[in-house]
Amino acid sequence: MTPDAERLARVRLSRVLEPGEPVSTALAAEVGGERLLASYLGERGDEHEVERARRLAACDPAVELERAAGQGIRFVVPQDEEWPSALDDLAHVEDLQGRGGVPIGLWVAGPLRLDRLGERVAVVGSRSATTYGAQVAADIAASCVRSGLCVVSGAAFGIDQAAHRGALAAGGTTVAVLACGVDRAYPVAHKSLLDHLAATSAVISEAAPGCSPTRVRFLSRNRIIAALGAGTVVVEAAIRSGALNTANWAERLGRQVMGVPGPVTSAASGGVHHLVRRGAATLVTGGPDVLELVGAAGEHLLSEPRAPERPRDRLNDVHRLILEAVPVHQPAGSDAIARTAALSIRETRRGLERLRRLTLVQEVPGGWRLTQEALA
Amino acid sequence: MTPDAERLARVRLSRVLEPGEPVSTALAAEVGGERLLASYLGERGDEHEVERARRLAACDPAVELERAAGQGIRFVVPQDEEWPSALDDLAHVEDLQGRGGVPIGLWVAGPLRLDRLGERVAVVGSRSATTYGAQVAADIAASCVRSGLCVVSGAAFGIDQAAHRGALAAGGTTVAVLACGVDRAYPVAHKSLLDHLAATSAVISEAAPGCSPTRVRFLSRNRIIAALGAGTVVVEAAIRSGALNTANWAERLGRQVMGVPGPVTSAASGGVHHLVRRGAATLVTGGPDVLELVGAAGEHLLSEPRAPERPRDRLNDVHRLILEAVPVHQPAGSDAIARTAALSIRETRRGLERLRRLTLVQEVPGGWRLTQEALA
Repeated sequence: MTPDAERLARVRLSRVLEPGEPVSTALAAEVGGERLLASYLGERGDEHEVERARRLAACDPAVELERAAGQGIRFVVPQDEEWPSALDDLAHVEDLQGRGGVPIGLWVAGPLRLDRLGERVAVVGSRSATTYGAQVAADIAASCVRSGLCVVSGAAFGIDQAAHRGALAAGGTTVAVLACGVDRAYPVAHKSLLDHLAATSAVISEAAPGCSPTRVRFLSRNRIIAALGAGTVVVEAAIRSGALNTANWAERLGRQVMGVPGPVTSAASGGVHHLVRRGAATLVTGGPDVLELVGAAGEHLLSEPRAPERPRDRLNDVHRLILEAVPVHQPAGSDAIARTAALSIRETRRGLERLRRLTLVQEVPGGWRLTQEALA
Repeated sequence: MTPDAERLARVRLSRVLEPGEPVSTALAAEVGGERLLASYLGERGDEHEVERARRLAACDPAVELERAAGQGIRFVVPQDEEWPSALDDLAHVEDLQGRGGVPIGLWVAGPLRLDRLGERVAVVGSRSATTYGAQVAADIAASCVRSGLCVVSGAAFGIDQAAHRGALAAGGTTVAVLACGVDRAYPVAHKSLLDHLAATSAVISEAAPGCSPTRVRFLSRNRIIAALGAGTVVVEAAIRSGALNTANWAERLGRQVMGVPGPVTSAASGGVHHLVRRGAATLVTGGPDVLELVGAAGEHLLSEPRAPERPRDRLNDVHRLILEAVPVHQPAGSDAIARTAALSIRETRRGLERLRRLTLVQEVPGGWRLTQEALA
């Protein structure tokens, strides 16, 4: 297998398959694009399979790549150095609404390499944002980029647009992940914003150039936004907002999910309040809260690109204090750990739960101690 | 010991001691008012003790009670049938800012017996509430009393006043707990409100009639509001608001602590957001959320007055579902429990933690099972 053959196979799969179709993404991750393509090309089962084989056979990947390159678009596959390793976490996460898995590849317009985004935070929310929500989204994005984080969002009206605007106004980096091809401006009103991002940073899509945005492609797209972010901030989202789907992905991925509250009388905040209420999101009131949860950028930017990231690298200061206070072998009670860490018992207890979910600590008779994984 | 002698001893202690002075409240609970009085009367130690003995000796409790009765004020002690048993939980809680313990007694104006308040919810918040906060407080109070709950609050401007107003407008029961004597109107602007409550329900204070409100008496008073409520709703509270002290008491007492969010741009919501953010309060957006957390009134009203309340009686529906899904002996994993309870693993996990804090479940190798206490 040459990297080029693998890339060409994935171009054909990307052109023909629906983004995030979970059987294909799982198979591609398991056996590779070339073998998956060969298998699909050889299928003579039902009508769907025959049609898929016909369309895969009809696709000329070299022409696809050439045409894309003419538009300043490249195709990034998991085998590339540029591949953002954060997306590989999608391999270990359950499907959501029939979508899931590591993307077959990403179509990218823009000079920014995807492995050079640094630490990232997703800022998402309602299309029908209030001026309050838009202002808070812009402020949070500005605050994050000033600390060296890269903002990730979609390209919709409302919160998405406000997040990009806030990041750009602060002179920072922000990237857009689309549900349609990166050569398309959707919504049309955001053409100049998308052109600017494509000229200065990156516009990303799992969907091949020319593809139109569909509901199911938004659902697939949301998992990429959630996976790229070390955390996802939901600024405003009504009870049935699509932004909650992104939050669900972030939750499944074990990323920080953060929610900005608003007046309880504002329907635009209803979905966020629900997220916080059920414990799925942590309430944040601005950039400093977000930075505390996703970690300041400085320490992360120093890490080697693609160096294997361990769960403990993502801990915030409080969790790190707690982890340092947990004994290696002889267990200690949470009160003793709280004393050592100089934190309240309540905060310590919550931190221990978080560390347990990251399999860094375990509860045993007598208290808590580190796991083998924490010692590694 | 006759009940009357005990009552008279406690009148003298109540008149002379500072409300919530934790050594005295602990001793009174341990040895009783009569023995504590005798001990204090006999003390000849430092100046403070001598002065206390002098003042205790000078107090004529029969005259005190007579004068109070003339104003429609009675003195309720823990030995009385009317005593609200919820206050006894204060015996098992750490001091906070130098205050704590079960009150020596309560001075009460109003026809409502304190053991007939039914299920109660405390609604507290900032004196300098916004119109938004006042409206939400009134709505929540109205919603709670419509479901048969009794509202408990202070008598301050802002949220306290709005909570009483909302409860009264909905034709419900609401009681005020004061930091000064129940014969005093503080603030003066709320004289007619307090008169109305004293005529129709109850105005309560640990401080003897005539006492003026002081900062430390507000701190003592807050623990009574928190202890009377099955839960405390903080509607608006700036970062240093006194309402957060009430929330801290509710938290220590293992009561539900609930916070109403607001715009992150509103300083009046800053303290509430902080409570929710650090996990001390559950976000609530209105009456239905509150009722879900403190339990609908119907089931509670049916319980016998002063029947010993077990932790499981205070569980909400979700926690009850989870508790029912936890095996008696052979432990089950949280995923299996989640399946049995038909809840998400996340929700189940959080519920199990809550149940563990109530010592109803325990985590053992292999998963979770009920404790002896849960089986009792």
